[in-house]
Amino acid sequence: MKPNFSLRLRVFNFNCWSIPYRSKHQVDRLQRLGDFLNVESFDLALLEEVWSEEDFESLRQKLLPTYPAAHYFRSGIIGSGLCIFSKHPIQELTQHVYTLNGYPYMIHHGDWFCGKAVGLLVFHVSGLVFNAYVTHLHAEYNRQRDIYLAHRVAQAWELAQFIHHTSKRADVVLLCGDLNMHPKDLGCRLLKELTGLQDAYLETQDFKGCEDGYTMVPQNCYVSQQELEPFPLGVRIDYVLYKAVSGIYISCKTLKTTTGHDPYGGTPLSDHEALMATLCVRHSPPQHSPSPTCEPAETSPLVTVLKEAWTELGLGLAQARWWMAFASGGIGLGLLLLVVLCVLVAGGKTGDVTLLLLSISVGLVLGAGAVYFFHRQEVKGLCRARAELQHMLERASKAQDQGLMPWPAQLLRQQDDRAEEQ
Amino acid sequence: MKPNFSLRLRVFNFNCWSIPYRSKHQVDRLQRLGDFLNVESFDLALLEEVWSEEDFESLRQKLLPTYPAAHYFRSGIIGSGLCIFSKHPIQELTQHVYTLNGYPYMIHHGDWFCGKAVGLLVFHVSGLVFNAYVTHLHAEYNRQRDIYLAHRVAQAWELAQFIHHTSKRADVVLLCGDLNMHPKDLGCRLLKELTGLQDAYLETQDFKGCEDGYTMVPQNCYVSQQELEPFPLGVRIDYVLYKAVSGIYISCKTLKTTTGHDPYGGTPLSDHEALMATLCVRHSPPQHSPSPTCEPAETSPLVTVLKEAWTELGLGLAQARWWMAFASGGIGLGLLLLVVLCVLVAGGKTGDVTLLLLSISVGLVLGAGAVYFFHRQEVKGLCRARAELQHMLERASKAQDQGLMPWPAQLLRQQDDRAEEQ
Repeated sequence: MKPNFSLRLRVFNFNCWSIPYRSKHQVDRLQRLGDFLNVESFDLALLEEVWSEEDFESLRQKLLPTYPAAHYFRSGIIGSGLCIFSKHPIQELTQHVYTLNGYPYMIHHGDWFCGKAVGLLVFHVSGLVFNAYVTHLHAEYNRQRDIYLAHRVAQAWELAQFIHHTSKRADVVLLCGDLNMHPKDLGCRLLKELTGLQDAYLETQDFKGCEDGYTMVPQNCYVSQQELEPFPLGVRIDYVLYKAVSGIYISCKTLKTTTGHDPYGGTPLSDHEALMATLCVRHSPPQHSPSPTCEPAETSPLVTVLKEAWTELGLGLAQARWWMAFASGGIGLGLLLLVVLCVLVAGGKTGDVTLLLLSISVGLVLGAGAVYFFHRQEVKGLCRARAELQHMLERASKAQDQGLMPWPAQLLRQQDDRAEEQ
Repeated sequence: MKPNFSLRLRVFNFNCWSIPYRSKHQVDRLQRLGDFLNVESFDLALLEEVWSEEDFESLRQKLLPTYPAAHYFRSGIIGSGLCIFSKHPIQELTQHVYTLNGYPYMIHHGDWFCGKAVGLLVFHVSGLVFNAYVTHLHAEYNRQRDIYLAHRVAQAWELAQFIHHTSKRADVVLLCGDLNMHPKDLGCRLLKELTGLQDAYLETQDFKGCEDGYTMVPQNCYVSQQELEPFPLGVRIDYVLYKAVSGIYISCKTLKTTTGHDPYGGTPLSDHEALMATLCVRHSPPQHSPSPTCEPAETSPLVTVLKEAWTELGLGLAQARWWMAFASGGIGLGLLLLVVLCVLVAGGKTGDVTLLLLSISVGLVLGAGAVYFFHRQEVKGLCRARAELQHMLERASKAQDQGLMPWPAQLLRQQDDRAEEQ
């Protein structure tokens, strides 16, 4: 990169709430979104909840002159809902589908069917390697009794791991998406602590938008007022996060959100607010940077947050094991009914009751068997995340004992550098 | 790394065929394996088909003094079967579970239940960053009519992608495992072309073991002679593959396989043969290197292999879509039966037949519904792999047009370097 080089990147992140035939004014909203993206001509537009590939395709056609590169991330039964439109050519792309993503029998929530994922696109802009990630984590339907908390924490862990392992040669890392987590939620802290990513809303000097950076606000006519009841002013669950490797500096020059209307003050484009960030990448530090990328916090809460996550996954594990035991009971009951049925048939008693018993017992064995297998898989997934967390905890504790600051992004880089020097 | 530095790494790869209560002499074989690993004291032992976590745990206890670091990769309902024992401390670890891995209704094959995966462990040895990958792909049950071919090709693609994206700062990359592919099979060629990995058997100057490097041979008393009928001499499906970044050279000094017996000439330790490689890492090229790591082949078959894989995935896609249509028919029939049932009940005709019809129709709708959803997910997975392949193909073709050799490992590195220089 040339000295005194400075690069401006305009990034757009938006949860489109685009469910064909279900979400209100879906066709009209997507059309207006396409028009807006064409007018604004961002460098990168990262979208979530574009559930239909046909909708992506029509957006792609519309945006082709302004955004020649585009990709839709396919996964699950419905699709991840994630897509990206870019002015810059895509050099490489891949995705990671989260191991844990809710329960198939929670059909009314539907997250399981989507195959929630994180998509990665690698760009080369002005000689720099940009890794752009887009994601959407499991929704939170009931904050007081959040049965998906362990899954969301595991997703945050996998997301952090995926970013860490795939961005080792990136100069700039950008993560956009609907994390379905408030800024101080466990998963959010875990993600930030592990990756060293910075929050555009907290870092920018120039913010225009909803109070406290909220991205779901009661002013938006599509937002369910009932869901927002515990947070009458709104919630911040959509993010633009970034970091740069040492020697390169990134800052957020401006951040805007829509404020319950579309960007021109009309009917909103979704039930979420859009985020529009102007990022500045340079080889010297920005003049007013509240917290430079590579400087660790005075007292890093890494070990604390790892322990918290470990405990939370443990609670999820206990719950999953309870479900396995419950399902085992169901299988046992089904088999017992089958034995009763055999005794009845052997005794010459056949008729309506035989067929009814047969249907119930077979249904019970198959249904409870499916539940058992599903939760067994959940147990494996939670154990996997816990074992990986445990490994990181041991390393962080060892680093602390050696007097190193247990800041993983920093720590991992130091280790790599040491390896290179030797 | 110091000048004239040379490092020797002894690596052991083995498919253990360790299914509790099912595979013959399982307990005895695992015990003898543990003894052997303790005596030999390899740097790294990568195992497949250790299906029970308890078996891993008892191996871990036994091997602790010789191999202080160990990890088991959990996934799916049963587990990936993959584990690793190492003399060197594990710096980082993660895993990727393959999107496509057979069919849940093929219970007698069972691969779907395992959650086949690739595990990654990062080591720092003598100042070098080693990325060690261990994997096990879907088995091939019938070579003439291989219904899993598209899935295995998709797994090879995901494996190559995972290695590429996670090894960008590695000095040495090592992949061991049971690929369930012959050396010239499409997936194997795809993997090698995309990653630039070299085959220890083809590269070594000093090979001792089964003819043609076979890793399943009829001499092994546990091997099903019927399965080996089309290949009376044996098959080579287990591999040690490696590469190093430019400036560092890796060669395979010796490669040994067992030959249908255990290493001491006794009853074999598994139905597969073990691979034992001595790798030599240095900063100058080895004296007799048949094909240095970074030199592309004269005419690279990348575009050909990508097109072949794209076509194969297309055939898999057509099959998956056929199953979706078939399942839709099943759902339709079930619903039709429900309508007939309603008509019967409305006409006052109840009795045995009503209950039978109800059971059949509900069973059909639920069963066919599950098959439909499963194959819809398969379609998404195949489409995803095809879209990624298509993107790579376009880039490779463009590179060819620009007169660049379309050798992706080379091409990607060149691109990264160019980005760094700018």
